[in-house]
Amino acid sequence: MKKTRLEAFSDGVIAIIITIMVLEIKVPHGQELADLLHLLPIFLSYVLSFIYLGIYWNNHHHMLHVTTHVTGGILWANLHLLFWLSLIPFATGWIGEHHFAPLPMAVYGVVLLMSAIAYYLLQSLIIKNEGSDSLLAKAVGKDWKGKLSPVFYLLAIAAAWLNTWVSEGLYIFVALMWLIPDRRIEDVVKEAEEE
Amino acid sequence: MKKTRLEAFSDGVIAIIITIMVLEIKVPHGQELADLLHLLPIFLSYVLSFIYLGIYWNNHHHMLHVTTHVTGGILWANLHLLFWLSLIPFATGWIGEHHFAPLPMAVYGVVLLMSAIAYYLLQSLIIKNEGSDSLLAKAVGKDWKGKLSPVFYLLAIAAAWLNTWVSEGLYIFVALMWLIPDRRIEDVVKEAEEE
Amino acid sequence: MKKTRLEAFSDGVIAIIITIMVLEIKVPHGQELADLLHLLPIFLSYVLSFIYLGIYWNNHHHMLHVTTHVTGGILWANLHLLFWLSLIPFATGWIGEHHFAPLPMAVYGVVLLMSAIAYYLLQSLIIKNEGSDSLLAKAVGKDWKGKLSPVFYLLAIAAAWLNTWVSEGLYIFVALMWLIPDRRIEDVVKEAEEE
Amino acid sequence: MKKTRLEAFSDGVIAIIITIMVLEIKVPHGQELADLLHLLPIFLSYVLSFIYLGIYWNNHHHMLHVTTHVTGGILWANLHLLFWLSLIPFATGWIGEHHFAPLPMAVYGVVLLMSAIAYYLLQSLIIKNEGSDSLLAKAVGKDWKGKLSPVFYLLAIAAAWLNTWVSEGLYIFVALMWLIPDRRIEDVVKEAEEE
Repeated sequence: MKKTRLEAFSDGVIAIIITIMVLEIKVPHGQELADLLHLLPIFLSYVLSFIYLGIYWNNHHHMLHVTTHVTGGILWANLHLLFWLSLIPFATGWIGEHHFAPLPMAVYGVVLLMSAIAYYLLQSLIIKNEGSDSLLAKAVGKDWKGKLSPVFYLLAIAAAWLNTWVSEGLYIFVALMWLIPDRRIEDVVKEAEEE
Repeated sequence: MKKTRLEAFSDGVIAIIITIMVLEIKVPHGQELADLLHLLPIFLSYVLSFIYLGIYWNNHHHMLHVTTHVTGGILWANLHLLFWLSLIPFATGWIGEHHFAPLPMAVYGVVLLMSAIAYYLLQSLIIKNEGSDSLLAKAVGKDWKGKLSPVFYLLAIAAAWLNTWVSEGLYIFVALMWLIPDRRIEDVVKEAEEE
Repeated sequence: MKKTRLEAFSDGVIAIIITIMVLEIKVPHGQELADLLHLLPIFLSYVLSFIYLGIYWNNHHHMLHVTTHVTGGILWANLHLLFWLSLIPFATGWIGEHHFAPLPMAVYGVVLLMSAIAYYLLQSLIIKNEGSDSLLAKAVGKDWKGKLSPVFYLLAIAAAWLNTWVSEGLYIFVALMWLIPDRRIEDVVKEAEEE
Repeated sequence: MKKTRLEAFSDGVIAIIITIMVLEIKVPHGQELADLLHLLPIFLSYVLSFIYLGIYWNNHHHMLHVTTHVTGGILWANLHLLFWLSLIPFATGWIGEHHFAPLPMAVYGVVLLMSAIAYYLLQSLIIKNEGSDSLLAKAVGKDWKGKLSPVFYLLAIAAAWLNTWVSEGLYIFVALMWLIPDRRIEDVVKEAEEE
C-alpha cells in the first residue's frame, strides 16, 4: 500500500519535471529557419536531460519493484532525490541559453552529482532495510556504474573551466553508460521467480 | 505491477503535455472582442493538438490493456514516444502564433511524424514480445491507419511550402481518420472474453 | 482495469488545471500592501474557479464510483469534458485581470456552460450504457441541479452586458447550489450495500 | 476504492505544487557567479517550502494510510487543504524576490497558518468519522506539534514587522520540529499488526 503511493508521487513529480523542461523551449517570435536553429542548443540540452530523467525513472522503477517495505526514512530519502531532480530543468535551461558557458556547465554537473548521491543514499537505505540477502542487494551488486558516475561528474565540473566540450562529452558518456541495457534487476527477479 | 507504473507515468506525462498547451493561450491585455478573435488561430491549433493527444492517449490505453509483459526495452520505447509528444505544445504554439506560416507548419508535421514512428516502434516491440498469436497482434492486424498516417504527414510537410491550407487540411484529415471509432482492440478483447 | 486508468488520467488533468491557475497570480514586483490588494480580484476569481473544479472533481469521482463499464465513446466524452475544463484557467485569468469586464465575464460563463453540457453528455452516455435500473441512473434521478445550472449560466452570460455583478452573483450562486452536500449517489450506494 | 482516488488526486496536486515552485527560479540572463548568487534567496526559500510540502505529503500519506472510510465532507476538507497549499508557490516566490521584506514574510506565515488549520480540520473530520478508538485517534494522540505550529506561525507573522530574521527562524524551527521522525502512526500501526 505504502509503496504504491510512494511510486505514484515520484511518478507524478518526475513526469512534471520532464515536461516542465519543454517550457524552456520558448516559441520563437520569427518564423524562419534561423529562428529554429537558434533554439538548437536549448533543444539538445533538453534531449540530454530528458534521457537523464528517463534513466532515473527507469532505475527508480526497477529499484522499487523489488522493494518490499517502505519506512519514514525512505520517504524522506526519496523526497531528497526528487528535490535535486527538480533542479534539472533550471540547470538545463541555463546551459541551453548560454551555449555551454563554464559556470552553467559546472552547475549542471553539480545538480547531476547531487542527484546521483541522493539516489545512492536512497538505494543504500532500502538495501539496509531489506537486508543483504534481498533481491535488491543481489541485483545492485558492486554497483560500479553508481560509483563511477559521481567521479565522472566531478571531472566534468572541473573540466568546465578548461573546455566545456569535455564536460559535455562526459555528461553524454555517463548517460550512454546507463542507457546500455542494465539487466541486473530484471535478471535477478527472473532467477528468483524460476527458483 | 510493472505495467501499472508504466501506465501511470505515461498518463501523468500526457496529462501534463495536454494541459501545458493551454498556457500558450495567453490572457489578452485588452477586453474587447478583437482581443479574443486575435487568439482564434492559437485556440484552433490547441483544439487540433488536444485531439491528437487524446487519440494517442486512447490508443496507448487500448494497447497496454492487452499487453501482458513489460520489458526494459518497452520502457525506453515508451519514453521515446513521450519525448516526441512532449514537443507538441511547442509546435502548437508556433503554428498558433504565426497564422500557419510554412516552416512552423512543417515542423508541426515533423513532430507528428516522429510521434507516429515512435508509437509504431513501441507497438512493434510489444507485439514482438507478446507473440504473433497475441490479442494485440490480432487487434492491430494490418494496421493500415498506422501505416497511412506517416505518408499523409510527409505530404503535409512538403505541402507547407506550396499551400499551408493543404497541410492543415491533411492534419485535420488524419485526426478525423483516427477519431472514427476504431473498435479493433475492443472487439478482439470481447471475442477473447466470450470464448 | 479500464476505469482505473480513466480515473487516473482525469485526476491528473484536473489536478494540473487546478494548480496551473495559481500561476496566473503573478508574484508582485512591489512589497507593499497595495501590491497585494492589487491581486485581490485575481485571487477571488481563483477561489471561485478552484471551487468549480473541486465540484467537478467531486461529482466525477462519485459518478465513476458507480460506473461498471467504460467504452471507447465514454473515453472521448470524458476527454471532451476535460477540454472545456482546461479552458477555465484562461477564463479565470481574464476576468481576474480585467476587474470583471463584460466580455471576459461572458466568456467565463461560456466555458462553464460548455463544461456543464460536456458533463451532461458524459453522464448520459454512462447511464445509457449502465441501464436505467443502474445505481447511477437512480442516484442522478431527475438531476434538477444539472438542468438548472446551464440556465443560470445563460442568464449570467446575458447579464454580463447589463451588470457584471449580476453575472458574478449567478456564478457564485450556482457554485453554492452544488456545494450543498449532494448525498444522492452516496445514499443510493449505501442503500444498495444494505440490501 | 474511494480512498485510492483521493490519495491519487492529492498526490497529483502536491506533486505539481512542489514542482511549479521551481519555475520561480528563473534562468538568469548572465552566466557569471554573481548571477547565480543573485538567486540564492529564491533558492533558499524554495528549499524551505519544498521541506514544508514534503512534511505535508508525508503526514497526509500516514494519515490516509490508517483511514478506513472517506465521506463527501472529507473530500471537501481535503480540497480545502490543497487550496491553501497551492498558494505556497506564490508566497515562496514573493519572499524569494524581496529578500525577506516584512509583508511577504507575514503573508508566507498566513499561508502556512491556514494550511495548518486546514490540515487540522481534515484530521479532526477523519477522526470523528473513524471514532476515538481508531488507529488514527491513537496515533495522533494529544497532537502537540499540530497545536504548537499555529502558535509559532502567529508569532512569526507578528515578528515580521520587527525583525524578519526572527520570522524566518521560526519558520525553519517549525519545519525542523516536524522533520524529527514522528513515528506515532508507524508505531501504532506496528502495534496493531502485532496484536
